[in-house]
Amino acid sequence: VKPPVPACTLVNGEARDSIAIADRGLAYGDGVFETLLVDAGEPVWWDAHLRRLQRGCDALGIDCPDAALLREEAARVAQDGARGVLKITVTRGVSLRGYAAPASPQPTRIVSLSPWAGVAAATVAQGIEVRWCRTTLALQPRLAGIKHLNRLEQVLARREWEDPAIAEGLLCDTEGRVVSATAANLFLVCDGRLATPVLTRCGVEGVCREWILQQAAVAVHDVARDAVLEADELFLCSSLRGILPVARLDGLRHAPGPMTRRLQHALWQAVPALRPDPGTTA
Amino acid sequence: VKPPVPACTLVNGEARDSIAIADRGLAYGDGVFETLLVDAGEPVWWDAHLRRLQRGCDALGIDCPDAALLREEAARVAQDGARGVLKITVTRGVSLRGYAAPASPQPTRIVSLSPWAGVAAATVAQGIEVRWCRTTLALQPRLAGIKHLNRLEQVLARREWEDPAIAEGLLCDTEGRVVSATAANLFLVCDGRLATPVLTRCGVEGVCREWILQQAAVAVHDVARDAVLEADELFLCSSLRGILPVARLDGLRHAPGPMTRRLQHALWQAVPALRPDPGTTA
Repeated sequence: VKPPVPACTLVNGEARDSIAIADRGLAYGDGVFETLLVDAGEPVWWDAHLRRLQRGCDALGIDCPDAALLREEAARVAQDGARGVLKITVTRGVSLRGYAAPASPQPTRIVSLSPWAGVAAATVAQGIEVRWCRTTLALQPRLAGIKHLNRLEQVLARREWEDPAIAEGLLCDTEGRVVSATAANLFLVCDGRLATPVLTRCGVEGVCREWILQQAAVAVHDVARDAVLEADELFLCSSLRGILPVARLDGLRHAPGPMTRRLQHALWQAVPALRPDPGTTA
Repeated sequence: VKPPVPACTLVNGEARDSIAIADRGLAYGDGVFETLLVDAGEPVWWDAHLRRLQRGCDALGIDCPDAALLREEAARVAQDGARGVLKITVTRGVSLRGYAAPASPQPTRIVSLSPWAGVAAATVAQGIEVRWCRTTLALQPRLAGIKHLNRLEQVLARREWEDPAIAEGLLCDTEGRVVSATAANLFLVCDGRLATPVLTRCGVEGVCREWILQQAAVAVHDVARDAVLEADELFLCSSLRGILPVARLDGLRHAPGPMTRRLQHALWQAVPALRPDPGTTA
């Protein structure tokens, strides 16, 4: 029996801060990841994150690590009870050079905890400023929805601005439909109806998005840029930041509306860890 | 002055076999790579590979390592003079969690040597068997042409077959145009004219493809699947394997033709390292 390790990164259960050069996660982005809020040592929305991790592994043909093992490793890295972000990465493991994987690959699992300041109460109340990105998302139904490690489009999109006042960027697909923000999903309210873009061609099916879809009547359909510009309410959501009203889009003002407020309060009721701390200024 | 290190992997100049978990190459596939044939300690087509590495770094906004430094590190890993495959990977380096990169990222450069058996003379003479892949390549002009680390499409395509008799798979883009093989470019001869698919929407601009474009009159245009099926000659090319005639495509026989033979001989003349060794059986 091994003693508990106080490290904040575990690679296949061992305290380490590095992985092999030959890991296919580095070579090809051949893997998936999850980032979860941890509050008082407890991962938030654990089951939903694990379901998406499993879906991602299934899509790539990677053996998903045992959920109980991941839960135990999550508890080990979060053992000091601090608030933080738990990141779980699963790759197909090491292989020789070349795209062909070994017949029986040994997946690599990486579990780590990073600090998390949370979102300031004022930001949650007043909303965030976002912009349109020029970078577009390619259409690849085989990889749509899952949170895989091929994230160059998001990296390029995030490089489009440096202004710290801008919290997020909205992305369209290569055919002009609105998809999401770089690291959050998008909802809009038009004529009192809540809607969110369909994510079967590109984009990531966020865990907070999934929660909202279970709470409210949401039309999941293609969203044109004009629909966003004309929306009565706009908000982003993520499992780390919760529901964030969009207060400005490329300088155009939006007021956080009643549907956004109702969903924020329902979320804080269901997931108290996402309720903003009035003392947080980040 | 450091003594020469007999390791076959260098990370930022140090002999290591691992990289930091926090490297963005692992987190997002945020980087590029090159694989070069090394013969008698000399990298083949060095300048062309370095030009593509630079193009890839430019496309991603990564500072490309100094070419002289990479050349020196290549010499260090290849110092035993063996035949091998040199792999150079450049990532944006480590960062905190999240798509935003540090203001002044320190790129990670990885230089390693793997053994390389070469291609058997019989294979080069008689040609290879290839298949059509169901996996398609998404259209993303921002990333087309460069050899970046987001390679899940190639991984999924290569997973479609296990039969060792099949050497490669042909890929179409999501709109049905033929693009390339998983790890080689495609040329075809129709009515005596040499052609190769345009790679401005997806695919990798291979170094051997570039060499062929400089040697012969080649029509670079969109290629339909029917054109491949009706071609008089078909061949693949890569900087490791040279020019490989396609002898069978999904069971359909092709005979290596005169244009393929002429280009093979021209290649072996220009790049003797690519001339097959009659003793090689791989």
